[in-house]
Amino acid sequence: MKESWSSLDNFEPNFRPLVVIELAKSTKDETREWLTRRISDKKANGGAQLLVKPLVTGDGDQNIYLVGASHFRLLLGAETVGLVKECTDNSMRTFTYSSRKTFKGFADDNQSFLTMAECQYIIKHELENLRAKDEKIIPGYPQAKLYPGKSIVRRLLTNGILIQIFPLHDQEELKKLRHTWYGRVKIGYQPLDEIRCYFGETIALYFGFLEYFTFALVPMAVIGIPYYVFAWEDYDKYVMFATFNLLWSTVILEVWKRLCAVMTYRWGTLLMKRQFEEPRPGFHGVLGVNPVTGREEPVYSSIRRQLRIYLVSLPFVCLCLYFSLYVMMIYFDLEQWALDYHKENESNFSSLMLFVPSIIYAIVIEIMNRIYRYAAEFLTSWENHRLESSYQNHLILKVLVFNFLNCFASLFYIAFVLFDMKLLRQSLATLLITSQILNQFAEAFLPYWLQKRHKKRMKKKMYSQKTDTDLSLVEQVNLEKEMGTYFGTFDDYLELFLQFGYVSLFSCVYPLAAVFAVLNNITEIYSDALKMCRVYKRPFAEPTANIGVWQLAFETMSVISVVTNCILIGMSPQVNALFPDSKMDLILTVAFVEHMLLAMKFVMAFVIPDKPRDIQIKLARLEFESLEALKQQVRATDYKAKSLLFWGKGKNTIFFTT
Amino acid sequence: MKESWSSLDNFEPNFRPLVVIELAKSTKDETREWLTRRISDKKANGGAQLLVKPLVTGDGDQNIYLVGASHFRLLLGAETVGLVKECTDNSMRTFTYSSRKTFKGFADDNQSFLTMAECQYIIKHELENLRAKDEKIIPGYPQAKLYPGKSIVRRLLTNGILIQIFPLHDQEELKKLRHTWYGRVKIGYQPLDEIRCYFGETIALYFGFLEYFTFALVPMAVIGIPYYVFAWEDYDKYVMFATFNLLWSTVILEVWKRLCAVMTYRWGTLLMKRQFEEPRPGFHGVLGVNPVTGREEPVYSSIRRQLRIYLVSLPFVCLCLYFSLYVMMIYFDLEQWALDYHKENESNFSSLMLFVPSIIYAIVIEIMNRIYRYAAEFLTSWENHRLESSYQNHLILKVLVFNFLNCFASLFYIAFVLFDMKLLRQSLATLLITSQILNQFAEAFLPYWLQKRHKKRMKKKMYSQKTDTDLSLVEQVNLEKEMGTYFGTFDDYLELFLQFGYVSLFSCVYPLAAVFAVLNNITEIYSDALKMCRVYKRPFAEPTANIGVWQLAFETMSVISVVTNCILIGMSPQVNALFPDSKMDLILTVAFVEHMLLAMKFVMAFVIPDKPRDIQIKLARLEFESLEALKQQVRATDYKAKSLLFWGKGKNTIFFTT
Repeated sequence: MKESWSSLDNFEPNFRPLVVIELAKSTKDETREWLTRRISDKKANGGAQLLVKPLVTGDGDQNIYLVGASHFRLLLGAETVGLVKECTDNSMRTFTYSSRKTFKGFADDNQSFLTMAECQYIIKHELENLRAKDEKIIPGYPQAKLYPGKSIVRRLLTNGILIQIFPLHDQEELKKLRHTWYGRVKIGYQPLDEIRCYFGETIALYFGFLEYFTFALVPMAVIGIPYYVFAWEDYDKYVMFATFNLLWSTVILEVWKRLCAVMTYRWGTLLMKRQFEEPRPGFHGVLGVNPVTGREEPVYSSIRRQLRIYLVSLPFVCLCLYFSLYVMMIYFDLEQWALDYHKENESNFSSLMLFVPSIIYAIVIEIMNRIYRYAAEFLTSWENHRLESSYQNHLILKVLVFNFLNCFASLFYIAFVLFDMKLLRQSLATLLITSQILNQFAEAFLPYWLQKRHKKRMKKKMYSQKTDTDLSLVEQVNLEKEMGTYFGTFDDYLELFLQFGYVSLFSCVYPLAAVFAVLNNITEIYSDALKMCRVYKRPFAEPTANIGVWQLAFETMSVISVVTNCILIGMSPQVNALFPDSKMDLILTVAFVEHMLLAMKFVMAFVIPDKPRDIQIKLARLEFESLEALKQQVRATDYKAKSLLFWGKGKNTIFFTT
Repeated sequence: MKESWSSLDNFEPNFRPLVVIELAKSTKDETREWLTRRISDKKANGGAQLLVKPLVTGDGDQNIYLVGASHFRLLLGAETVGLVKECTDNSMRTFTYSSRKTFKGFADDNQSFLTMAECQYIIKHELENLRAKDEKIIPGYPQAKLYPGKSIVRRLLTNGILIQIFPLHDQEELKKLRHTWYGRVKIGYQPLDEIRCYFGETIALYFGFLEYFTFALVPMAVIGIPYYVFAWEDYDKYVMFATFNLLWSTVILEVWKRLCAVMTYRWGTLLMKRQFEEPRPGFHGVLGVNPVTGREEPVYSSIRRQLRIYLVSLPFVCLCLYFSLYVMMIYFDLEQWALDYHKENESNFSSLMLFVPSIIYAIVIEIMNRIYRYAAEFLTSWENHRLESSYQNHLILKVLVFNFLNCFASLFYIAFVLFDMKLLRQSLATLLITSQILNQFAEAFLPYWLQKRHKKRMKKKMYSQKTDTDLSLVEQVNLEKEMGTYFGTFDDYLELFLQFGYVSLFSCVYPLAAVFAVLNNITEIYSDALKMCRVYKRPFAEPTANIGVWQLAFETMSVISVVTNCILIGMSPQVNALFPDSKMDLILTVAFVEHMLLAMKFVMAFVIPDKPRDIQIKLARLEFESLEALKQQVRATDYKAKSLLFWGKGKNTIFFTT
């Protein structure tokens, strides 16, 4: 009796749907059949050995499939993706099926050993690694070419046959998570471990950073409040605030690295080996041989990519920067006009009018940022990067440079060309507050409202008024597949990055910025949580060990803020009064202090270890163990080799006693 | 017939002595016997399984032993230390005995597959890893305590029973190397690959760096010469020189990283896994449990070490720095006195006298540097660091800070306090040239002369007048054991580091510095080569992938030189003439340019990849292969696990077709 393991499993009563595959309505039957067979086929035949079930909807269409896997298959998958789990002796180790008994909470019948997010990640990984064998085309679509080793799912996606793959929500779990996360008003930490179990490490790390950053801003906000309450205008107090700010911003960024290491060690991602990166879905090129893998796959000349970057993207970005500066100059004309108007007819209305240019400019900045974002995505995608990481780096660089200039150019202009501290403070406040309000609105509440309306309509259509948890699987899938897609943490980090700029670049002019940042971040936590749980489709979990390039971006910002703050302090009348005779001495002193502060920053970054001592010891212990294991292995081959050699020689027969 | 493998081998006629062990003359017989037995005992019994032979000298004393190993033992050792060798398909792979046939140049009877330096490194590694089993003391020395896992050789060394272990020279090879290296006058590259084969990677990398650095200085020297020849005193020309210098120094340091990667890839050390670091020989503490290895070994509280560092070492270093500044002030008094003398009695003698203070000061600086070096070594050793790398880092930091201040403080004082450019140029020239002459003398020629005298006396004693290659083994060992020990590349790099400071810190004042540096480095190559081949004992090879902390030191120096050169240029009368109205504008411009240059440096360091593209591809290919191998392994256990599971269940008997 020879039978495939999946087909047996397929009819098991405990099939648990994890991932949804939505095909185009027009998909041909032979394609459907071929795809489901490939997914459920066993590994030995090149399949993914997963369970797949069509979702029978009311209208008879069969374009939605549910994918699951047996517990055993998921455990093998966990080994393939290299999950790291906690052992019974409290150490973190890479999971292997053969050593499964040594892991905490493992039992052969314990389905909750792997979190649902992990199971979904495993299934996504297995689906993406389902590769063409000898197929030349996708059956039924002669234009969709395949070659051995090409990921089938990616080809289906680029040809529009596969519309989307997304993981299902777990209504029970989600309800629990919502309750502990934002369901009740409480002061305290977010349930980061639960968030991680449900949404994966990347998203949990973002919320961890958001929380940490908010707490880190609290001391600055507390110190900033009396400046507003007592209307302190003494510059020496501002100097104190700025100095505190500079040291503080260095310390918090260093401490974050340590906290991040603690968290990701507990989650296992700190130890997870990097997987070999496959070409990103959008990458195209002529078929050639990859010099790294030796496999036949599309290749694209690096020189052509460089040409595209330097001859098209770079000039385009420069043009955008120029345009942004041009808009800024228009803003200053408007500002001047408002000022003139206020002088001519002094009234309550005219003094309100003073804020209008800043508000308009803030809105224009937001709009420009968003339009530029699309352009940057298009351009970076057109640059045809082979790897997702390289694509992301180029995109982030483009977006950061533009957003930095777009948001802060006017402030730099006011501070260092106009020397108008009052206008600087007013502009800073207006820009910060307007952008925060716009962001909160555009990011969470608008989509939430749209989503709610859509849901109501859907429910009406189904003639039922059940609550979420009572929905049938068909209803749930139909609701979720229409939800928006969450495109990753990019925009969320970008928002924090710009906020950090507003708070630290000109901190000695407007200490209240930290207060607004804290207030914004508290609501941000709630609106982002809402967004994750109610607005968007559940995203796939993505293991990560740190916040990546954003750490560098925040550190660069903190270096720039040392320079700007030193200049601002040097320009203050109080400091100027200390050097009544010679402006030169003043500037030299300021330059000297600035260099010392920068040097101190670098020394601090160098001296503070990136990982806490106990994590260092744990990592060292793991490394030691793996070296010992290797040595044991060498010793074993040693003896084997020796005995072979001796037996081979055939004259000195020696018995080994080990 | 049960016999140990070493004792069989021991009487092989082709015993090739590689390493010499010298015991104290008073060593007890039981200790000798125990040590030789432990060294030759087989691995299974906890021995090192090496061949050891007493050297029978004329006077009947048996305190010198020669250690060798069979070819087979060396191959297994190469696997243990993780040597990386070139395969027949031109890729670099970690050597394993079982895959030995795939390596280039391997044949079972080819003894030259491993270089002599590699063999000696393997033997050193095996000797150092010869550990106590159940011995509580060293036999014959009750005060020399042992505990399971303690390195026997290190305990013997700290108790003075073992005087030294050193690798033997190979007279034939050395003669060949000397000939190609410095035997004939020629323009061209050094035979770096041969140096690496004979002395190992650390030393070859130093000579590679010295050569590269010399070549890199040539353009600066060439541009510097006309300044002297045509007596150019125009400041705009100096500005050009300084600008070129700044960009050039960034570029050469980045390019070096790439060249270094190419070299160490070829040598295999770029891919070599870091070994687990054992405690350094001098480390002591109370017996406790190491949290990393779980073994019982001496532990020393990190807090006590921190206290020693911050309460003793730090104040001591500060005191030394203060003393160095005090000596500098005395130098300036002397300088003033010489100037006064020259004014009063103007003569040839008095104008020569002008140089005397600088020369005296240069000599005093050299002496202070050397004394401080001993103090720093003593203190760092007293801080009781557990790891050699941590010891080295603390030592290098201490020495660098002091040497930097000691050598350059007077120049900074002249430049930025006295504003005396003429004196600066004169001091710079005197310091540079005097220190170079002193160094060459103290480093190579003096020891060489001493060594030669000693050798002659030794040979007279032996009543023979043979050349080196005809010496008997006994004579060779007796000669070499009296030679000085080479303590690593520290001093050599330090010299280059200070030279780099002289050349780049005040480059716009004295362009001729690069010329002197090039001339010095050409002779330095020869004198260092002489030192390695004729003056010192052969050092053990030490695999390394880069120049380590020195890269950081050179980069820091190049950042500091941006600042100093910008200030010097800002102080020049020509640049001052450009801003006739406002000193403020001048300073602001200089500060702006300086910040731009620094930013450019960081961007350049970020943009230029540390490894050339082909090395990157080769590394990526290796990583890909190891991931693929892992996947294969997982797949294998996959099937095994599956079949086990099914057989275990006992109802669904399924046959797998793989």
